[in-house]
Amino acid sequence: MAKSDRIPRDRDNDHTREMASQRATFLTEMTGMRPEMVSSYTIDPAVTKGNIENFIGTAQVPIGIAGPLTMVGEHAKGEFYIPLATTEGTLVASYSRGMRVISECGGARTTVVKHSMQRAPVFLFDNALEAREFGQWLNEHLDALRGVVKTAVDVPRLIEIEQYLVANMLYTRFCYTTGDAAGQNMTGKATLYACEWIRAHHPQKPRYILSGNIDTDKKHSAMNLIQTRGKRVVAEFVLKRDVAKELLRVDTEWLYKFRQIAGIGTQQAGAAYSGAHSANGIAAMFIACGQDAANVSESHAGLTYVELLDNGDFYWSVTLPALICAAYGGGTGLPTQRECLELMDCYGTGKGDKLAEIIAAVVLAGDVSLSSAILAHEWVSAHEMMGRNR
Amino acid sequence: MAKSDRIPRDRDNDHTREMASQRATFLTEMTGMRPEMVSSYTIDPAVTKGNIENFIGTAQVPIGIAGPLTMVGEHAKGEFYIPLATTEGTLVASYSRGMRVISECGGARTTVVKHSMQRAPVFLFDNALEAREFGQWLNEHLDALRGVVKTAVDVPRLIEIEQYLVANMLYTRFCYTTGDAAGQNMTGKATLYACEWIRAHHPQKPRYILSGNIDTDKKHSAMNLIQTRGKRVVAEFVLKRDVAKELLRVDTEWLYKFRQIAGIGTQQAGAAYSGAHSANGIAAMFIACGQDAANVSESHAGLTYVELLDNGDFYWSVTLPALICAAYGGGTGLPTQRECLELMDCYGTGKGDKLAEIIAAVVLAGDVSLSSAILAHEWVSAHEMMGRNR
Amino acid sequence: MAKSDRIPRDRDNDHTREMASQRATFLTEMTGMRPEMVSSYTIDPAVTKGNIENFIGTAQVPIGIAGPLTMVGEHAKGEFYIPLATTEGTLVASYSRGMRVISECGGARTTVVKHSMQRAPVFLFDNALEAREFGQWLNEHLDALRGVVKTAVDVPRLIEIEQYLVANMLYTRFCYTTGDAAGQNMTGKATLYACEWIRAHHPQKPRYILSGNIDTDKKHSAMNLIQTRGKRVVAEFVLKRDVAKELLRVDTEWLYKFRQIAGIGTQQAGAAYSGAHSANGIAAMFIACGQDAANVSESHAGLTYVELLDNGDFYWSVTLPALICAAYGGGTGLPTQRECLELMDCYGTGKGDKLAEIIAAVVLAGDVSLSSAILAHEWVSAHEMMGRNR
Amino acid sequence: MAKSDRIPRDRDNDHTREMASQRATFLTEMTGMRPEMVSSYTIDPAVTKGNIENFIGTAQVPIGIAGPLTMVGEHAKGEFYIPLATTEGTLVASYSRGMRVISECGGARTTVVKHSMQRAPVFLFDNALEAREFGQWLNEHLDALRGVVKTAVDVPRLIEIEQYLVANMLYTRFCYTTGDAAGQNMTGKATLYACEWIRAHHPQKPRYILSGNIDTDKKHSAMNLIQTRGKRVVAEFVLKRDVAKELLRVDTEWLYKFRQIAGIGTQQAGAAYSGAHSANGIAAMFIACGQDAANVSESHAGLTYVELLDNGDFYWSVTLPALICAAYGGGTGLPTQRECLELMDCYGTGKGDKLAEIIAAVVLAGDVSLSSAILAHEWVSAHEMMGRNR
Repeated sequence: MAKSDRIPRDRDNDHTREMASQRATFLTEMTGMRPEMVSSYTIDPAVTKGNIENFIGTAQVPIGIAGPLTMVGEHAKGEFYIPLATTEGTLVASYSRGMRVISECGGARTTVVKHSMQRAPVFLFDNALEAREFGQWLNEHLDALRGVVKTAVDVPRLIEIEQYLVANMLYTRFCYTTGDAAGQNMTGKATLYACEWIRAHHPQKPRYILSGNIDTDKKHSAMNLIQTRGKRVVAEFVLKRDVAKELLRVDTEWLYKFRQIAGIGTQQAGAAYSGAHSANGIAAMFIACGQDAANVSESHAGLTYVELLDNGDFYWSVTLPALICAAYGGGTGLPTQRECLELMDCYGTGKGDKLAEIIAAVVLAGDVSLSSAILAHEWVSAHEMMGRNR
Repeated sequence: MAKSDRIPRDRDNDHTREMASQRATFLTEMTGMRPEMVSSYTIDPAVTKGNIENFIGTAQVPIGIAGPLTMVGEHAKGEFYIPLATTEGTLVASYSRGMRVISECGGARTTVVKHSMQRAPVFLFDNALEAREFGQWLNEHLDALRGVVKTAVDVPRLIEIEQYLVANMLYTRFCYTTGDAAGQNMTGKATLYACEWIRAHHPQKPRYILSGNIDTDKKHSAMNLIQTRGKRVVAEFVLKRDVAKELLRVDTEWLYKFRQIAGIGTQQAGAAYSGAHSANGIAAMFIACGQDAANVSESHAGLTYVELLDNGDFYWSVTLPALICAAYGGGTGLPTQRECLELMDCYGTGKGDKLAEIIAAVVLAGDVSLSSAILAHEWVSAHEMMGRNR
Repeated sequence: MAKSDRIPRDRDNDHTREMASQRATFLTEMTGMRPEMVSSYTIDPAVTKGNIENFIGTAQVPIGIAGPLTMVGEHAKGEFYIPLATTEGTLVASYSRGMRVISECGGARTTVVKHSMQRAPVFLFDNALEAREFGQWLNEHLDALRGVVKTAVDVPRLIEIEQYLVANMLYTRFCYTTGDAAGQNMTGKATLYACEWIRAHHPQKPRYILSGNIDTDKKHSAMNLIQTRGKRVVAEFVLKRDVAKELLRVDTEWLYKFRQIAGIGTQQAGAAYSGAHSANGIAAMFIACGQDAANVSESHAGLTYVELLDNGDFYWSVTLPALICAAYGGGTGLPTQRECLELMDCYGTGKGDKLAEIIAAVVLAGDVSLSSAILAHEWVSAHEMMGRNR
Repeated sequence: MAKSDRIPRDRDNDHTREMASQRATFLTEMTGMRPEMVSSYTIDPAVTKGNIENFIGTAQVPIGIAGPLTMVGEHAKGEFYIPLATTEGTLVASYSRGMRVISECGGARTTVVKHSMQRAPVFLFDNALEAREFGQWLNEHLDALRGVVKTAVDVPRLIEIEQYLVANMLYTRFCYTTGDAAGQNMTGKATLYACEWIRAHHPQKPRYILSGNIDTDKKHSAMNLIQTRGKRVVAEFVLKRDVAKELLRVDTEWLYKFRQIAGIGTQQAGAAYSGAHSANGIAAMFIACGQDAANVSESHAGLTYVELLDNGDFYWSVTLPALICAAYGGGTGLPTQRECLELMDCYGTGKGDKLAEIIAAVVLAGDVSLSSAILAHEWVSAHEMMGRNR
């Protein structure tokens, strides 16, 4: 690589307006195009240290506000206004409609039912028997390993070590609680300590790789759907028959029938989420609130379960088994992102589960709105439908 | 809902600084918190019309520049500097390292091998026989339906209609090419026209729902992995043994061995992507470039295939079967987003496949870097490793 | 291997009582155990030629008769008595109960909706572009390949060639109809001819492997669930509310509720079949009727879809997307197996779809019975339940 | 149903030649066809009591003997001759070839690494919070439940209770060891006791259904692949380079390359088994040995892992995560079936793991043979190949 191709960088103090500007100039030289608006940021570059390298400016993603959303969760209680960063027109309006429906029906009940963040080292042996025996040893030393972790790192607590033996290898998942952080990095560090302790104490000094790819970090997986990654959260509410008719223009019986059909479609397709569109709300909140948008891959998985009650009301729930979110750390402290968290009083210590509850309720609101919109199509005459699309 | 709870809105002209400010004031009243930095945007709110409702400002997501990445694709050729919008520290640096490795080895060869965007109406019948006969009718009227679509909408072209009969229903996927747009909305409109034409011409006037949930929009699915959604893209390069040793500090033999282990981990976990971390690069490019970040859910799926060549060099490829990206439409025209596309000369007509090729190559670069980093752990002594984490 | 360890074999005429006896004697020498009952078969060993090597006798699997099962299928019409070969007590009784219920409700309506048997060669190239261009060539030569197949083999007809490009390879599925045979072998032969024709006519003379493992022969797969393997069959009937109460002791409302719960369980577990137990009926019929029992792996996959009708009646269906069965060939001609087919008038030419319809209806009957039995538990007092289990 | 349609049955003594004959006569009347050969069984019908209802005779499935197979397992040691009941020609010969290869290389090393048989009751609540709290209660009462199970049933021991909360329900898997039996029935009984104890002791007296469909009995599932059902077993051996060349006519390098390709095919297809054909050997042994052939659905799942060693030898393993087999109970005591178990000294107490080890090794042998056969095609000229198929 010719020196002139190299992106300018100041090893000592790189997160400055000046360096950003130098890089913008460099880009202009290399591409003939000047990133004026990217450079037109209003945050202090210094705050991005630890979040980005080769900073040149910011993407300005429009934020719309949806709500109010009434929550009757374990941690999230009251009315919330939800910041959604998206470029998909109608998304905010649609989620807002769903939130209004939920609120009219008394609010979303939400519950975090499991916490589990993983790193997944794989240990290599000569044969399956050795791997099995190592697994037994691991079980016997679980308490010791918990102690090692507690001493080595502040936040993560080692809960359990799942074992999956394949061939002559023991794939493991070291499962942690991580307080109010997402925790991928801190559990990586904790697991590295644990693995080195294992090497130091196990007679065979077993070889290992820090990830055998079953974490499964930044990937949807059956493993996560089953075993949880991050938080497993449920949001539920009872849609009143009258509210459905008035605000959504659908009968709950027809919603129930549609659920059967969409559920079968989900199974036929082998889809990761059985409702309408978890990823939209999750991505929009993740971007607004400084979460890692790559985790949409894991977090969007989920199960929709509904019941048609005797009085025609409609129990509606979503269960998100791998929601990864944080109330501090990562991008949560950046200026606009922190504000979005603070709008919901979800920034900082003790707010992690509250945020998870709100996200799950937002997903529920989005499904309420879109599912009904899909159904409304059928009852509208062709002519009207066409018109609406013009 | 009390009137005072309602978010202020101007039905005639809502995308203005004034309305954004009114809403910010409203939020302050409702939450006690003022979104100063969110309000400190530098784009003209008018441009967000069609992309957002209830606009209050922007999320400023830091953009770092990675590269140069040498491309020897079908559409993308030459050196590229890649804008990545993320809050995850080290991500830009890591991708940059991967890009350097690829460039040193001659660049990434990339190929878009299939285009297919879907809407998936389900048609309801009394029994399976009727559904099967309707499917036959659909096959016989495919050309007519192509004509209907061509007349009704500008861009989408109906390619084929996949059929999946379950019980007394015919689930379908109407598959389109959509030019340089992602095309979810335009294919929705096209499919609505097609369905109404079907109702008008089929003797039974069959009932249908515009989505039977097998699109599978904003969801990972086996269906998408198999049948493609958006674009199916391959990126490949040959990692030279010496470059691996020098820049990545790993032997290609060990990379090959690791691929066996990670591949089995992927199967054991039932993971959607078998490489290291497609979602990171995809999410960062999606946010920078005005793509729909919710589509990370579908787009991150993929298969890693490698070969250890006789001379010790290492063929490395990623195949992304459901990459959804656009060179125009959606958020691509917003000020900072458009600039990011223009940095790569990927904005506008004729640039869709080029963008897809670059994204696939970026994913490859990210895997090259992270996979090697995971392996490097093992060869480092415990002491050093701990130190590095402090 | 010492000569004395070798199983005795007569290269010219091995399927004789004498050779079977020699082998039994050999086994006695080697293991100290004499297979008296295995040797106590009543079929002529000569008929097993082509079905088995190293014949020593037969497994005598008990056959029970279930039914009558009323069919109102496309091919299967009237009352049928079903031979089930199993060693699981209560299985025949339980299926019989389900058949009685279906018959009381007017019979099972059954429809074969797709035929597709595959061989799946993979073609190897230097890069993705070459693989894509080969795929294009393949599409252009589809008619020629159909002709090659027609000339080379009697029964199979090449319908389509599905393409799945990964990395520098083109995975394909050559899809055939195979008349009344299962057809794995004849399609293997046909595909070999086709592949050799391709090598002879394509300028690159591409390397290939006859199976890239996506057939997916003798394995459950998402591919088969989506694309069909063998036959895709639907069985449906309407369970009358009164019949449910009287014969099954359950309310149809409760069955409907259970379906919601079991459907979610299926999704949570990532299970291949969403009903109660397709594999039991399929395995029992396969063994009785000379089908390949290894195909239980593919054939047991399926989707259960139900509707609670306004009058309290209950539409119940199963869809089997990968049912592999044959009315001739394989083990169908063996003495006891052929008789079992003949009991249902399902032996020989023109009977393949009829057999498939009956199997699907049997699966439905089994689910009707077991699902109801599971539910009945809840309504029985603990004491009674315990008693019943003693 | 007219009385004359009813299958004859003697409530007091139904498993007799006379009753079988009466039923055969009845079938002849109803169908016009007489099952002569089915009636030509040589076992005493009395022994089938508990295994079948409405007995009319037996399916005589040809048994071929394969081997010898050298085992160096934990429980199975020495040379074994394997009874395979199948109607698929070449199957016995092919497995025999694989066994010879394994034996020449020193034998199959086999290890049972986990035991876990499940029943999966689902508990129903008003909301997720109640379900979560019930889960907590369950954890606190695990020891008590173990005691309840121990008192109630002889063999099964409750190991753990997995919990999967969805919506307002707690899906559970009660996991047991079941000695040398498969144990589906005994664990059903044990779980019923446990559930009734829960209802008696938990303040809410929670409603439950004995199966929420996540057992997942008689179905392949991601759950079983991850959590084990029955036994998790590994079989491994090192294929010597020379033996591969001589007996299999393939280079181990080419086998290694093929594994990469077949592994990707498996992932592309979403297949339950990544090797060549586990189901063939499993089904053939299951039928011969009185196992439940419906369990082929679960048991055929598995992972193939290989390594190419520095000297060109080839480590080859299969891992079967859900192998369900029994050394007593079910059909194991029937005359021909018991003999087949006894040929391998696998009948009765203490032989369950030994049988599992042998089955896993047989699967390995089958893959060794078939994988090599697939590859051999490529190196044979077209003419020869065609000839061989004629």
